[in-house]
Amino acid sequence: MPFAREGDSAPTFMDAFFTATSAVTVTGLATVDTGTYWSMIGQIIILVLVEIGGIGIIALATILGLFVGGRLGLRTQMLAQVDMHVVSLGEVRPLFRRVTVTLVSFQAVTALILTIRYRLVYFDSLPEAVWHGVFDAVMAFNNAGFSLNSDSLTRYAGDVAVIIPISVAVFIGAVGFPVLAELYRGWRRPSRWTIHTRLTVWGSLMLFAIGSLAFLTIEWANPATLGNMPLVEKVVTAIEGGIMPRSGGLQSFDWNHVEAETQGIAVVMMFIGGGSASTAGGIKVTTFLLLAFVILAELRGDPEVQIGRRSVSGRTVRTAVSIALLAVMLVYGGTLLLMLMSGASYIEALFETTSAFGTTGLSTGLTPELNAPSQLVLIVLMFVGRVGTIAAASAFVLRRRQPRYHLPEEQPIIG
Amino acid sequence: MPFAREGDSAPTFMDAFFTATSAVTVTGLATVDTGTYWSMIGQIIILVLVEIGGIGIIALATILGLFVGGRLGLRTQMLAQVDMHVVSLGEVRPLFRRVTVTLVSFQAVTALILTIRYRLVYFDSLPEAVWHGVFDAVMAFNNAGFSLNSDSLTRYAGDVAVIIPISVAVFIGAVGFPVLAELYRGWRRPSRWTIHTRLTVWGSLMLFAIGSLAFLTIEWANPATLGNMPLVEKVVTAIEGGIMPRSGGLQSFDWNHVEAETQGIAVVMMFIGGGSASTAGGIKVTTFLLLAFVILAELRGDPEVQIGRRSVSGRTVRTAVSIALLAVMLVYGGTLLLMLMSGASYIEALFETTSAFGTTGLSTGLTPELNAPSQLVLIVLMFVGRVGTIAAASAFVLRRRQPRYHLPEEQPIIG
Ligand SMILES: [K+]
Ligand SMILES: [K+]
Repeated sequence: MPFAREGDSAPTFMDAFFTATSAVTVTGLATVDTGTYWSMIGQIIILVLVEIGGIGIIALATILGLFVGGRLGLRTQMLAQVDMHVVSLGEVRPLFRRVTVTLVSFQAVTALILTIRYRLVYFDSLPEAVWHGVFDAVMAFNNAGFSLNSDSLTRYAGDVAVIIPISVAVFIGAVGFPVLAELYRGWRRPSRWTIHTRLTVWGSLMLFAIGSLAFLTIEWANPATLGNMPLVEKVVTAIEGGIMPRSGGLQSFDWNHVEAETQGIAVVMMFIGGGSASTAGGIKVTTFLLLAFVILAELRGDPEVQIGRRSVSGRTVRTAVSIALLAVMLVYGGTLLLMLMSGASYIEALFETTSAFGTTGLSTGLTPELNAPSQLVLIVLMFVGRVGTIAAASAFVLRRRQPRYHLPEEQPIIG
Repeated sequence: MPFAREGDSAPTFMDAFFTATSAVTVTGLATVDTGTYWSMIGQIIILVLVEIGGIGIIALATILGLFVGGRLGLRTQMLAQVDMHVVSLGEVRPLFRRVTVTLVSFQAVTALILTIRYRLVYFDSLPEAVWHGVFDAVMAFNNAGFSLNSDSLTRYAGDVAVIIPISVAVFIGAVGFPVLAELYRGWRRPSRWTIHTRLTVWGSLMLFAIGSLAFLTIEWANPATLGNMPLVEKVVTAIEGGIMPRSGGLQSFDWNHVEAETQGIAVVMMFIGGGSASTAGGIKVTTFLLLAFVILAELRGDPEVQIGRRSVSGRTVRTAVSIALLAVMLVYGGTLLLMLMSGASYIEALFETTSAFGTTGLSTGLTPELNAPSQLVLIVLMFVGRVGTIAAASAFVLRRRQPRYHLPEEQPIIG
């Protein structure tokens, strides 16, 4: 696709392949500078790939959830609320359409706010402001980390009228279709929400609060991030620092220069990611919180894992454990491989592989410097991170067999 | 204890406290050089503390296992093999005595081998060779990493007649009482071993093989470790490199100069540790392998988690998951705390905290350089790592309540 490249030269195969994968998986890691390497046509292709990738992954997860009964939770929810006994694709379609319309309207409003602010403060020409506003709004809602600026959001650092709309868009985009659908129909009655919605909503808010507070505390005096900022900008940037690692990928500061502890916390946040059937990646908020409830049940000695007057079956626990552990193995293996092949340090490699697996797109700047085999590792991680958790969870549920006989039980010593 | 200190000065409180904790928990991390800082009396105290700590932890785990029915697995085993219906402390005591006698004999043989070798090659005086031989044999069997030499085993690097006896002693010490007891009575019939013994034996051998092969491959050309060695010494050192991180703590090379990938693998090995009711630390081989079998069951769609024609209950799985995740939180929290308080790099802090939690005792050299609060973090980690997993597992079993009613089931979306 030479026409996609700025100037006369054609893009290299690896750059094109990496960028396409990063766009379709709504990650945002980039081997080249989006704004200068790609032509206008190339940038539009990225925009379209991101929008298709974002809607595609939501649709895929939703449809898989319908065919793989129970996985999506929609059946339980609909049974409880509208007393239906079969959920068909047709019944979900209008819901999906309404959510899509809502999301596109949100994107339009965000684009409008950004455009006005960009025109007033940052760009002299209106078309340029509009193009940046639209691009950033689409990226934010799809949780993709591409930016037309070579320094991502750095020039807007601490600007409440840019960073906050983008952060809110990222947060909403990371919630996921089933939760948005349920909120759409019954957001006023939290007591009647499904377990899935409760876990996702409260978990996302909790992770946001912890992430932002930790960021504010640790980075308070760091001149590369909050050190030289007035209070309001500090808070705005800390909000960004708490939301973006959960899958946003846009950045108004250099993640290579944050404190090492902040990088360590961001790795955990990228690994957890956002809500199920959303544009966010990671093992998902529900998977993570379910494991926390398993610990809680053990600490209390509960016979069943309980979440708000509901029990969760042992098989669901096993699925969650398996997904989380397979993800740990994948990220750890990728990290060791990246270290072996590129000579990157431990935390550099861990940060970039977790960002790829979580389709987050945050970078300490390592990706463009990597050799082709290392970039291939990241491509595989983005792909597996994008469809792997959904595919694995569906496959696990589909493969479940009913017991035909019981083996005698035996207890190995634990601990 | 000024008399324990070499020369006229008294030891500082922190050094004495750290060393005593490290000895009783059979870890081996040290803030000072054992051979020069402590007097002969001080070194004997360390030797005694290690022997008491080692036997104590085995006895504690065994007794807890008896009172907390089922946890130890001995009941199942004895029921199966000798058809008894009650297991009392009295019935285990002769077994415990026989195992102890065997272990002490092993220690004596190891001490003899080491003494002969030390006298022939390394030391001119016989008393010195005897003292080093006895000290190293006791350390090895108790999986404690103290050494009378300031450079640990470095002067013996690659010496098959020193490194191999010590590595074998560490390996046997890390197996644990219940397995040794069962092997003692029926080692010829692996098909009748309990699940616990099978998991421990095959798991330990597997981790040893993987660890040594990975070490050999990654370190092959590293001049700081295997690079300049002839083949036999390479193999001997790789065997050490595969066994020691699983809780030994003695080292014939500098873990600060191994490849970063080897450090990364060692961190995992230290975290897993050795067998239950042994002198090794970590979450234990059975806990780790049980999680692997959970994944396997999910991949195959099995209704129950199966290990060799036996099923493992969902509650046992939950306990294993809880122990492993609490350990991850502990090590990760300790790592961030150490980074914040000492300015250590990510991998340095992770290596040292995992070594403390796993009561391994391997060090990249960070421990002596740490300030008092950071050393206190390591002390807490050693203590919790030593008794925490056993206490938590027992408490979880004791707290288990029978279900009085069932809550309605609901399934959050995983992945
Ligand atoms: K992203
Ligand atoms: K040790």
